[in-house]
Formats: sequence, C-alpha cells, structure tokens
Amino acid sequence: MTYCVAMGLEQGLVFAADSRTNAGVDQIATYRKLHKFEVAGERAVVILSAGNLATTQSVISLLNMRLGSDRPNLHGVSSMYDVASVVGSTCREVIMRDSGQSQSSVNFGSSFIVGGQIQGEAPRLFLVYPEGNFIESTRDTPYFQIGETKYGKPILDRVVDYSLSLKDAAKCALISLDSTIRSNLSVGLPLDVLLYQKDSLSLNNHHNVTENDANFRALGEAWSQGLREAFSCLPDVQW
Amino acid sequence: MTYCVAMGLEQGLVFAADSRTNAGVDQIATYRKLHKFEVAGERAVVILSAGNLATTQSVISLLNMRLGSDRPNLHGVSSMYDVASVVGSTCREVIMRDSGQSQSSVNFGSSFIVGGQIQGEAPRLFLVYPEGNFIESTRDTPYFQIGETKYGKPILDRVVDYSLSLKDAAKCALISLDSTIRSNLSVGLPLDVLLYQKDSLSLNNHHNVTENDANFRALGEAWSQGLREAFSCLPDVQW
Repeated sequence: MTYCVAMGLEQGLVFAADSRTNAGVDQIATYRKLHKFEVAGERAVVILSAGNLATTQSVISLLNMRLGSDRPNLHGVSSMYDVASVVGSTCREVIMRDSGQSQSSVNFGSSFIVGGQIQGEAPRLFLVYPEGNFIESTRDTPYFQIGETKYGKPILDRVVDYSLSLKDAAKCALISLDSTIRSNLSVGLPLDVLLYQKDSLSLNNHHNVTENDANFRALGEAWSQGLREAFSCLPDVQW
Repeated sequence: MTYCVAMGLEQGLVFAADSRTNAGVDQIATYRKLHKFEVAGERAVVILSAGNLATTQSVISLLNMRLGSDRPNLHGVSSMYDVASVVGSTCREVIMRDSGQSQSSVNFGSSFIVGGQIQGEAPRLFLVYPEGNFIESTRDTPYFQIGETKYGKPILDRVVDYSLSLKDAAKCALISLDSTIRSNLSVGLPLDVLLYQKDSLSLNNHHNVTENDANFRALGEAWSQGLREAFSCLPDVQW
C-alpha cells in the first residue's frame, strides 16, 4: 500500500507521500510516489501516485517520454486542468493495455493526486481516479488523500483549513503520515514532502524524510506526548 | 457499517459499539450491536457484532433461542472458550444456511467480539471471525476492533495498555468512536458502552450514549480542543 496526501491552500500547495510498496508481507520495496515536472519560472507540476505499481510506473514513464512530443504533454498543455486530463487519459491507456488480454483478478487501478501551477493560472489541485476522470479541490474541501487513507484522516479533518500556513500544513501532513505508519505496516519511511509557495513556479522546497531525520522524530515524539497529555486532561465521564 | 471495540485489561473488560447499519446511503437504520447474556453471580457474557445484519441477527436469535436447550449454549457451557466456540459454530451455521443456495455476490460474513467471565475463570476476550474460528486477547494485544476500524485505531495504539483503568479505557473507546463518527458517515450514535469489573459477574455498568449525552459531547469537545492545542505546540520543522 501507500499513503499520499496533498492540500490546496490559500498560500500554495503541500504534498506528502510515503515510499513503501508491498505485494504481500514478504515483498516490500521502496518506490518514490512523488514525481516532479518542472519548467523553471513557467510551470511546476507534482504528481503523487498510489495503486498498482506497474500501472503508476508506466503512467509516469509515458508522461516523461512524451514531454516535448506532438501529442498533449505535461510541458505543452496550457492549464492545470489539461495536465490532470493528460494524466487521466494516460492512466486509462495503460490500464486498457495491461488489463485487455488478462483473465486474472489483479487490480490494475491507480489513483493520482496532480497539483501545481502554470504561469497565468492560480495553483490548482486534482484527484485523478483510476477511470481517468478527476475532481478539483476547493476552499471547503482543501485536501485529497490516496492509498491507505483512513488512519491519517481524523487529524486532517480536525486541523486542515484553507487558511492554514504551508508550514503548518506540512506539519499536519507529517502527523497524518506518522499516525498511518504507526498503525499500518504497509506504509513506511522515507517520506517525500514538498511545499509549493503560490506563484514561485519552483519545486525546490522538497524534502526527503528518512528514519534518521531529527525533525520528523521530534515531531512524532511531541505529537505522541501531546496526545497523551490531551488524553490525560479529558474530563471524567460521570457514568 | 459499524464500529465496535473491546479491551481485555487487568481490571476487567470494556466494550463499546455504535448502532448504525447501512446498506447504501439512503438505507440507514439504528440497530444495537451490543448483546448481553447474563446469569447474575454466575456468568456475564457480552457479544459485539459487525457485518451482514441478517447474519448477526440470526446468530444472536439462535443463541438466545437455544439457551437452556440440550445443545451447547451460552448458559450451559463452562468456559469462555466454549462460549466463543458456540458463537463461532452458530455463525458458520447461519452463513452456510443463507449462502448455500445463493448465486448472489452478497457478503454474508459477520465478525463478533465475545467477552466476559464465567465463575471459576478469569475474564476473557475473543475475536470470532466469519469462518467461526477465533483468537483471544493477551497482555500484549489487549484490544480488538471489528467493522470500520481504521479511523479509530491510532488513538488505541497510543493509549491502550493492559494496566489502563476501566474508566480510562472507556474514555479511550469513546474517543476512538468519536474520531470514527467524525470521519465516516456509516458509523453513528447512539453508542453502547459497558464496563465489566473483574469478578463482579454483573453487566449493570452499561450505558447508552445518545446525541444529547452531555458527557460524550464534553469529551468530544475536550478532545478536539486538546488535539488542536497539541498540534499548535508542535516544534517547527527546520526545512
């Protein structure tokens, strides 16, 4: 499994993803789920992927191979809507190709979170379904999750708000990932975290969080401590 | 869906369950998932159920109809192990009966948490799978969940410990239910909460938590507040 979360906020976008892939408990590997497509100063696109690894790798490979070609591609299209559309149609293409002849019960599906900014537009964030169709985030619903989403959802539901700063949003994403990692073996370090400041058109604020990352460890410990304190301060129930 | 959680602790057992059943979003109903089988001063058994409602209702009905009969039943068997075994075999029986002729893709499965005490034994807690087999809680793994389990698991993983008091364990179960209710529409009030004090052989400490329950509302608000405070106290990440 995998867990990815992204937020579309007033100040920009935040992306976070783990890097664990598993097919059974004895076939665990590390694959990055955060992919960048950037033309400095002109466009900055991030794609997070979850689902069938063969499908997601093929989709990302095809997106890369087609950059600069005649067909619609991520360096050529003129809006983030078109970027999401290209990701969706590439996903459909791969799934059709791979599942077409197959009699197996394998799930070829993959989901993607696609976000970024193209000069002339505001930053935008999309969730692309395995069917290739997609939805966009709004002020009311500023975050998307894909993969193993449930463990890390309660903290997002309580904290994420359109006006949240990028720094706090990234912190919240890390907490959401930490909760998931603690409760589910199929989600694991290292993590990718990327903060995209509105109108920067740059993907440089990208961080790789490993097991030795003192920041992440301190954050996880402070959160555990804070939760236990919050729990110990709860009012007694008068049964 | 449904969410039930139970804990087997040093001081006794705690059970908690929501009461929402749904088959699609326009077919939502309230059914209690906590069932009691008691012979005062001699045995105290609690069963929580999740899964196919027809299956769980039939299992509980048959368990009740067979009390006092010649066949192994919940008032006749002499250990909690046998109680779990009777629940398991009744579940198998119902699923075999109902799915036997059916060509449909309906999932007839149900899971049960079975806990309690029979005079002469310590309290014990079991998780009964749809296949009728079962596992028992231990000091290391003192809680079981069935139904919509993921949202409410992180708080259990951080707080539940074999030495936790029954009062704190019940509080933790309520928080786990509250988190689930906030993030998932298929889990809803009212809740059943039952605290079983070791050797009491009584199921009287049983509470019905409705929307108007001031205790539950205060607990949920204090927890939200505590979480937000814990979040705001987190150290900044030095990116």
